[in-house]
Amino acid sequence: MKNCSLIIKGKYVLTMDNQMSIFNDGVVAVDNDRIIAIGGKEILKKYKSEKIIDVGNSIVMPGLINTHTHAAKVYFRGIADDLPLSTWLEKHIWPAEAKYVNKNFIKNASALACLEMIKSGVTCFNNMYFFEQETASVANKIGMRALIGEVILDFPTPSRKTPKEALEKTEAMILKHQDRELISVAVAPHSIYACSRENLIKAKELADKYSVNLHLHISETKKENEDCLRINKKSPVKYLDEMGILDNKTIAAHSIWLDDEDIEVYKNRQVKTSHCPISNMKLASGVMNFKKMNESGLIIGLGTDGAASNNTLDLFSDMRVCALLHKINNLNPEIASASEVVKMATINGAKALGMDDKIGSLEIGKKADIITINLDKPHLSPVYNPYSHLVYAVNAGDVENVIINGKIVMRDREVFGVDEDEVLRNACKFQ
Amino acid sequence: MKNCSLIIKGKYVLTMDNQMSIFNDGVVAVDNDRIIAIGGKEILKKYKSEKIIDVGNSIVMPGLINTHTHAAKVYFRGIADDLPLSTWLEKHIWPAEAKYVNKNFIKNASALACLEMIKSGVTCFNNMYFFEQETASVANKIGMRALIGEVILDFPTPSRKTPKEALEKTEAMILKHQDRELISVAVAPHSIYACSRENLIKAKELADKYSVNLHLHISETKKENEDCLRINKKSPVKYLDEMGILDNKTIAAHSIWLDDEDIEVYKNRQVKTSHCPISNMKLASGVMNFKKMNESGLIIGLGTDGAASNNTLDLFSDMRVCALLHKINNLNPEIASASEVVKMATINGAKALGMDDKIGSLEIGKKADIITINLDKPHLSPVYNPYSHLVYAVNAGDVENVIINGKIVMRDREVFGVDEDEVLRNACKFQ
Repeated sequence: MKNCSLIIKGKYVLTMDNQMSIFNDGVVAVDNDRIIAIGGKEILKKYKSEKIIDVGNSIVMPGLINTHTHAAKVYFRGIADDLPLSTWLEKHIWPAEAKYVNKNFIKNASALACLEMIKSGVTCFNNMYFFEQETASVANKIGMRALIGEVILDFPTPSRKTPKEALEKTEAMILKHQDRELISVAVAPHSIYACSRENLIKAKELADKYSVNLHLHISETKKENEDCLRINKKSPVKYLDEMGILDNKTIAAHSIWLDDEDIEVYKNRQVKTSHCPISNMKLASGVMNFKKMNESGLIIGLGTDGAASNNTLDLFSDMRVCALLHKINNLNPEIASASEVVKMATINGAKALGMDDKIGSLEIGKKADIITINLDKPHLSPVYNPYSHLVYAVNAGDVENVIINGKIVMRDREVFGVDEDEVLRNACKFQ
Repeated sequence: MKNCSLIIKGKYVLTMDNQMSIFNDGVVAVDNDRIIAIGGKEILKKYKSEKIIDVGNSIVMPGLINTHTHAAKVYFRGIADDLPLSTWLEKHIWPAEAKYVNKNFIKNASALACLEMIKSGVTCFNNMYFFEQETASVANKIGMRALIGEVILDFPTPSRKTPKEALEKTEAMILKHQDRELISVAVAPHSIYACSRENLIKAKELADKYSVNLHLHISETKKENEDCLRINKKSPVKYLDEMGILDNKTIAAHSIWLDDEDIEVYKNRQVKTSHCPISNMKLASGVMNFKKMNESGLIIGLGTDGAASNNTLDLFSDMRVCALLHKINNLNPEIASASEVVKMATINGAKALGMDDKIGSLEIGKKADIITINLDKPHLSPVYNPYSHLVYAVNAGDVENVIINGKIVMRDREVFGVDEDEVLRNACKFQ
């Protein structure tokens, strides 16, 4: 019998490996930060631990990966809804950001966001916003995995006067976090409409210099596409591709208004997509061509986007809405099956962030990012198919335990490493 | 100071009355089954009670009304998903129903359904399925309001050999429940494709005889419409209207494939619609023309449909999906605003069931069907607009207390009048 630091037992262990293996009455053995064994009860004959979590009638699965968000925007959750994008942005979000966003705001709001994400089973998130070092510190302290990108814009922001300053700060953050376990850094130019060609190219050069991800919004709105066609005589995707921006380290949020040629470009360049169905529907931005993009073999992860346009950071809701949206959009109930959608929120999310060597599935040698979902609830009874429940029935509040990098971050819904009452007290209105 | 049986205090009291009045730091005074006072703190100077529930930072609002479901289908939750409607029905649901549905199945499954609905804030549901007397008994015992309809089909069912028998049973149930507080009875012919003209007319005659609702599916699928056009040379709505079936006591589930003339018929006959967005998306049935129907002034309530096609009885999810679906379907974020959607799940649901004299809003003289939602949660902080939270952020599990007909049915998520452990134990797989 070998000793290990943690053993988790549960009725349905979903690995999300290539074979989509499920172990009934399964066991995961963790030592320090890594999974060292996974399988059925036989694991218990080989490994013992002082810490055994037996979750009984639960699903045990990889933590969810939120591939696109602006975490600190949780403080603007519900500040303005049901409005045209331009009114929403120009009359509400931008003025509120200009007035209230500062280092302290980001610090407190990021704590709320991390707390919300952990309590909804997210173990890793890809962020783009202001004062990102604050978000990185909060995530690191709470024990959450994050890919962090200081947003680069042509105009002054609450955190940076110039795009040059944002690029310099990004480089400093890359250097600072190079050896960190939980925090990685991406270069995050906002979009083609908020960044000049010159700044986009500089951002790409910086990403190449350190071989890190480039995280940006692409083709979110019809207007973005139409403006680009008018001004540059080509689609946003082709405009970016001809600049040499797109490759397998590009994380493209939204990607709604792509035509067949754009999808071909994504395929050739191995661009990764972060699909944000709730935000896209709420802002009425449009419907991503999931069927075609998925059939083309593109890697598509799921993202919540910010809580100002979602209005939560709950990836279970995005899973459900993703499955529903593409069925109705194609008038075909076979599109976006439950197991496909769970892949999007786990292993394909990891692939989108270039982290699938470390996370996204429960396999020997991978980091132990694990969540458990208790099924002893009226709305989750009976159980025929765990994937179906995860997409069509589970709510964020059903997540019971969260383990990140081998460490128990939430136990029976209590999150360690943060004072929940204080975080809630800080969350006052900003308007 | 007058005595009353119950006082509820909370930060946001949403009345859903004609003026959409909200009382901040509001108070509701209940005596026996009815609301006798509602307003701000001044109520506490006029009324006292031995039972005061102070819910603090919570929303206090009318209970949600599920205007179309097949409650006992919860036992088939997730038995088959992501399939074409015909395969789903013919290869999975119908065989499972034929094999397993009996009185005891309905009794136990209805207990699970009622439990799930109460725990997600539903205080009244409109049901159509088999052995409805069992569902009525369970609802009555647990203290839930229900409109019950034994489904009438041309072919034999698990509960009835002939449609004649179903009609007789319906009449007996109407007589039995005429004076009941919580249970009402509707006549429930399934649809134009499962009921002959003759049986539809008999069902309507029975509904007229006792002045009760007629509850049926109308225009759920494109096939239903196309078949009706081919066979009867008119749309399902016109086919029913020319039979004299449609009036202000008709509850029409789905109503997806209506053309402008059909909507005009609904308007003239004051037909009530139960809109089931999640089920319609999951089965890829089609998108109801919400914009046109709503602008025509039709009364539209929300329904979950059965849990075999949802896969929950959670009306909060249907609220969120309703708001998102119609925004994206019209590429207009102003459609289906949060407050409109909350109306659909409360007062308009009551109007759809013909119960708005009794329930659907918190007003003096109405029955005390009240729920409270605790906002001290990361995903519900901060609070700018309670309607926005109800639609875009609240999950079913955030409902904390449920009062029906003046009686506390759930307190701090514990449901009285049912043994939750036993109900969960009974919910095994049926396949």
